[in-house]
Amino acid sequence: MATEFDTGSPSIRQIQTLIRDQQTIEIKLLTGDVFSSIVLWQDAQAICLNIDGQPMLVMRTAVAYIKIMS
Amino acid sequence: MATEFDTGSPSIRQIQTLIRDQQTIEIKLLTGDVFSSIVLWQDAQAICLNIDGQPMLVMRTAVAYIKIMS
Amino acid sequence: MATEFDTGSPSIRQIQTLIRDQQTIEIKLLTGDVFSSIVLWQDAQAICLNIDGQPMLVMRTAVAYIKIMS
Amino acid sequence: MATEFDTGSPSIRQIQTLIRDQQTIEIKLLTGDVFSSIVLWQDAQAICLNIDGQPMLVMRTAVAYIKIMS
Amino acid sequence: MATEFDTGSPSIRQIQTLIRDQQTIEIKLLTGDVFSSIVLWQDAQAICLNIDGQPMLVMRTAVAYIKIMS
Amino acid sequence: MATEFDTGSPSIRQIQTLIRDQQTIEIKLLTGDVFSSIVLWQDAQAICLNIDGQPMLVMRTAVAYIKIMS
Repeated sequence: MATEFDTGSPSIRQIQTLIRDQQTIEIKLLTGDVFSSIVLWQDAQAICLNIDGQPMLVMRTAVAYIKIMS
Repeated sequence: MATEFDTGSPSIRQIQTLIRDQQTIEIKLLTGDVFSSIVLWQDAQAICLNIDGQPMLVMRTAVAYIKIMS
Repeated sequence: MATEFDTGSPSIRQIQTLIRDQQTIEIKLLTGDVFSSIVLWQDAQAICLNIDGQPMLVMRTAVAYIKIMS
Repeated sequence: MATEFDTGSPSIRQIQTLIRDQQTIEIKLLTGDVFSSIVLWQDAQAICLNIDGQPMLVMRTAVAYIKIMS
Repeated sequence: MATEFDTGSPSIRQIQTLIRDQQTIEIKLLTGDVFSSIVLWQDAQAICLNIDGQPMLVMRTAVAYIKIMS
Repeated sequence: MATEFDTGSPSIRQIQTLIRDQQTIEIKLLTGDVFSSIVLWQDAQAICLNIDGQPMLVMRTAVAYIKIMS
C-alpha cells in the first residue's frame, strides 16, 4: 500500500493542477456514487474531496473516472 | 499483502487523527454498505470499526470512501 | 500472489486469535454473500471457513468485512 | 502478473489436493456465476475447470469463494 | 503495470495456443458482458479480441473467465 | 501506484497509435458507463478522454474494454 507516489506522471500532475486552481471536478466511483467537488489533496491511496464542508477520502482503487468541469 | 504501511502518507495520518480524536466517520464499501463508527485502529490491510460494540475489520480494498463527520 | 504474509499486522493477528478461540464471525463478500462461521485457517490469499461442515476458501480480495460476533 | 506462485501456501496446497483427488468444488465468481466442477490445474493467474467437457480458465482475481463438496 | 509477462505459465501458454489455432473462446467480464471471439494477441495488461471485425482490448483485471469452445 | 509504464507492451503501443491517429474508441467501465471518444493521452494510472470538450481521466483499474471504432 506504501506505493510510491509518482508526482511526475501526467494524471497526478493534472490532479495537482486541479488542486492549485481549486477547479471543480465530477468524480464517479465503482459504487455508482457521483460527487462534484474541488480536490483538497491527493496521495498514493486517496483523493481528498470537500463534501458539504467536510473532508471525504475517496480511495483511488474505487475511482472510475474524474471529469474536469469547465 | 505484507504491503508496507506508509504512516507518513496524508490519508493514513488523517485516519490516525480520527482514531486519536475518536471522531465518527461514515464509511461506504463497494458492496454499497454504509457504516457510521469511530475507527479503533488501522493497518495495511484493514480499518477496524466499532459496530454494535463489536470490532469489524473492513478490508481497505473494499472501501469506496471515508467521510469525516463534524 | 506469493505476497508475504505479515503475521505481525494487527488484522492478521486478530484473525489468528479468532482461529485459536474458535470464535464465530460474520463475513461479507463483494458478491453480497454473508457467511457466519468459525475460521479454520488463513494465508496470504484466502481465509478458510467451515460452512455446512465443509471447508470454504474465501479469497481475501473478495472480502468486504469481517464482523466479530460476541 | 508474473507473480510468483507460492506452492507452499495452504490455499494453493488445498487446491492441489483437490486436483489430485479430482474432487468436485463449487466456485463462485464476483459476477455471481457459480460453477460446479473438478479442477484440472492452477497457476498464478487462473484456476482451470472442466465445464461441459471444455476447459474454462477462471481468473483468480474474479473468484469470491471455493467450496469443497463432500 | 509493467508487470512481467510470464509466458511460461500454463494459462498464458493456453491462450497462446488459442491464438495460434485461431480457436473461438467465450469470455465473460466483471461487467457481465460476454463475447465470443478468437484471440488476436495478449500481453501483461490485455487480451485482444476481434469483435465485428474490429480489435477490442479487454483488460485482464476485468476478465471473469475464458471458456474454450470446441 | 508508481508502476512503471511499459511503453513497449502491445496494448500500450496500440493506445499510443490511437492517440496519434486521433481515432475514436468505445470504452466501457466496470460501472457500466460507456464513452465514445478520442484518447488525449495515457499514463500508468489513467487514460485521458475528451468528453463534451472536457478532459476525463478514466482509471485503468476501472476499464473493462476498449473497442477501436472503424
